[in-house]
Amino acid sequence: MSYQRYTNTIRNLNVTAPFIGPEAQERQSGILFKARLGANESVFGPSPKVISAIKENATEIWKYCDPENYDLRHVIAEFHGVSSENVVITEGIDGGLGLINRLLVDSDEIVVTSQGAYPTFNFHVAACGGRCIKVPYKGNHEDIYTLLEKAKKLEAKMLYLSNPDNPMGTWWPASEIEFLIKHLPGNTTLVLDEAYCDTAPHEAIPAIDISNPMVLRFRTFSKAYGLAGARIGYCIAEASVISKFDSVRNHYGINRLAQIAAVAAINDQDHLKAIVDKIAISRARIADISHANGLIPIDSGTNFVAVDLLHDGLFAQKVIRGLLAFGVFVRMPSVAPLNRCIRISAGTQDDLDLLEVTLPKVLSAAF
Amino acid sequence: MSYQRYTNTIRNLNVTAPFIGPEAQERQSGILFKARLGANESVFGPSPKVISAIKENATEIWKYCDPENYDLRHVIAEFHGVSSENVVITEGIDGGLGLINRLLVDSDEIVVTSQGAYPTFNFHVAACGGRCIKVPYKGNHEDIYTLLEKAKKLEAKMLYLSNPDNPMGTWWPASEIEFLIKHLPGNTTLVLDEAYCDTAPHEAIPAIDISNPMVLRFRTFSKAYGLAGARIGYCIAEASVISKFDSVRNHYGINRLAQIAAVAAINDQDHLKAIVDKIAISRARIADISHANGLIPIDSGTNFVAVDLLHDGLFAQKVIRGLLAFGVFVRMPSVAPLNRCIRISAGTQDDLDLLEVTLPKVLSAAF
Repeated sequence: MSYQRYTNTIRNLNVTAPFIGPEAQERQSGILFKARLGANESVFGPSPKVISAIKENATEIWKYCDPENYDLRHVIAEFHGVSSENVVITEGIDGGLGLINRLLVDSDEIVVTSQGAYPTFNFHVAACGGRCIKVPYKGNHEDIYTLLEKAKKLEAKMLYLSNPDNPMGTWWPASEIEFLIKHLPGNTTLVLDEAYCDTAPHEAIPAIDISNPMVLRFRTFSKAYGLAGARIGYCIAEASVISKFDSVRNHYGINRLAQIAAVAAINDQDHLKAIVDKIAISRARIADISHANGLIPIDSGTNFVAVDLLHDGLFAQKVIRGLLAFGVFVRMPSVAPLNRCIRISAGTQDDLDLLEVTLPKVLSAAF
Repeated sequence: MSYQRYTNTIRNLNVTAPFIGPEAQERQSGILFKARLGANESVFGPSPKVISAIKENATEIWKYCDPENYDLRHVIAEFHGVSSENVVITEGIDGGLGLINRLLVDSDEIVVTSQGAYPTFNFHVAACGGRCIKVPYKGNHEDIYTLLEKAKKLEAKMLYLSNPDNPMGTWWPASEIEFLIKHLPGNTTLVLDEAYCDTAPHEAIPAIDISNPMVLRFRTFSKAYGLAGARIGYCIAEASVISKFDSVRNHYGINRLAQIAAVAAINDQDHLKAIVDKIAISRARIADISHANGLIPIDSGTNFVAVDLLHDGLFAQKVIRGLLAFGVFVRMPSVAPLNRCIRISAGTQDDLDLLEVTLPKVLSAAF
């Protein structure tokens, strides 16, 4: 009979969804989450001006978005002091990671990343037929020097680094990132995932240099800006690289209200600052709760805290399941030795009250 | 120095955006459009219940969408009498066309479509390194028999057909589509673009048969449902084919409010019926205006009318530019002989009043 003739890449692929969503977990467990602290969303929400903009423009949803994303690209460019030709809008950073793989990765080509780093990046590498070579973390940090060494040795197409890091929350100072950029092999593109830059210490983020075509900076409105559901990310890079995204992107792929929301969001920096403060307070409380339970919170430049439970991955899984049963949604890194930790997003006071009450119970049951 | 090593496909690609958006045309011309009748959006907008749903849920935008799109897939499945495993949600049909190309098209493989059919499909074929073989229209219809013949001869991976057709608005009865399906070569997947099915005569749309893995039906909320800016399309197909989309899709790519909007939209079929009636009235008026100017409106099963200007493409371009100067945004097919027509979307009474007044002036200036 008839049959689909999938591409070679697709035929050889083991399909695994990068993450199970909280809604699926709720459906499976029958427990509705009271504290949604697993996906590093911003429980504090976006600016009230953003919400107003969405409501005011809701009746315009019958119109396609502007496929050039002109307004949004221009406010982003102005914000960063670059040209709009240095900015492309993507359906979250995830969308951008998919596109850069399609631009660069041919079958069997090599990409270097860290073992336990963002799995959605690896998903997109695999979907293009590429091979991820994974470098172990050095303690709680991605290991810049070994990543560089591997990229050189294997003539990697890309080197992926997130700074600050997900899932550990750690960061490298700008000087280390600049060292990485300086010593990048001539053929290797740096995919610098800066999803968490808005909550990072100022000294962690190097100045943007759009003259270097080999460095791509990925940013998002999903984290501190509180717009995860809008699906707006962007890439900043040298103009000829940005223009290449037009070869593969879904030109009409961005939601019209999401664009309007993102413009309103970037224009309300006061709100962003206030949220970053709230996130810092929340991180501090997660650290306090961790200490009170004999656990070690890892210093974080993100909107979450990786908490070292001082045992193995099986123990962490038990704790995750225990918290889920109390309606507290958190996640954990996927591989050893990072999976001795659980990852708790910044939460509201109510969220963390619930964490504070439930964590000791869950820990004692897990032993 | 350093350089990007793009894939072979990307290196050899001539980048052309599928469509220039109306916003870009407004920026270039300095003229704001008074009648937006070029992109086959629904000027009548979505159901008021949809607008309410967006507004009521706007504060939830800080949450990622459910990556399984569970609620939306289930209402769509119920609506069509299939299982949710037969439905995948995509960022518009455009997004779905991108994904099916990634699943099926390897470098230099052949895909069959019609000359002058949807350019965004061709864009996605090219981005995967595939080659589009284009069959001329037969009069104002896509030529099913020659498409079939070419697909057989060239062992095409895919055959693309839109029914009703864009840009001509014509349709084949279900019996012809069933003939096509029956005679499809065993190796060729039918990509059946049914963006305009909601406005088509009942007899144009064949029953859905999810047992045949070689037939993929693409639908959208962008047209009659009035949600072009939301970016929600879907594909209905046999479950194993649908599951393959998980290998390449952006799992968190759908906007959270857009999902909620689409659920509300499909649940308000009374609104859809009322809009389909309005579209029919609008099409009739476009036909009247065309006749009054000595032009020939082509019978349409869509939310637009292709109007034969009875001259060549250069003449049609003049008319398009003339209408734009009066703030009337319309488009035209890209290739001869279809480009003797202009394509006018169903409009409000005000929109068509403006068309009625301006068209005679523009036509006489174009001669």
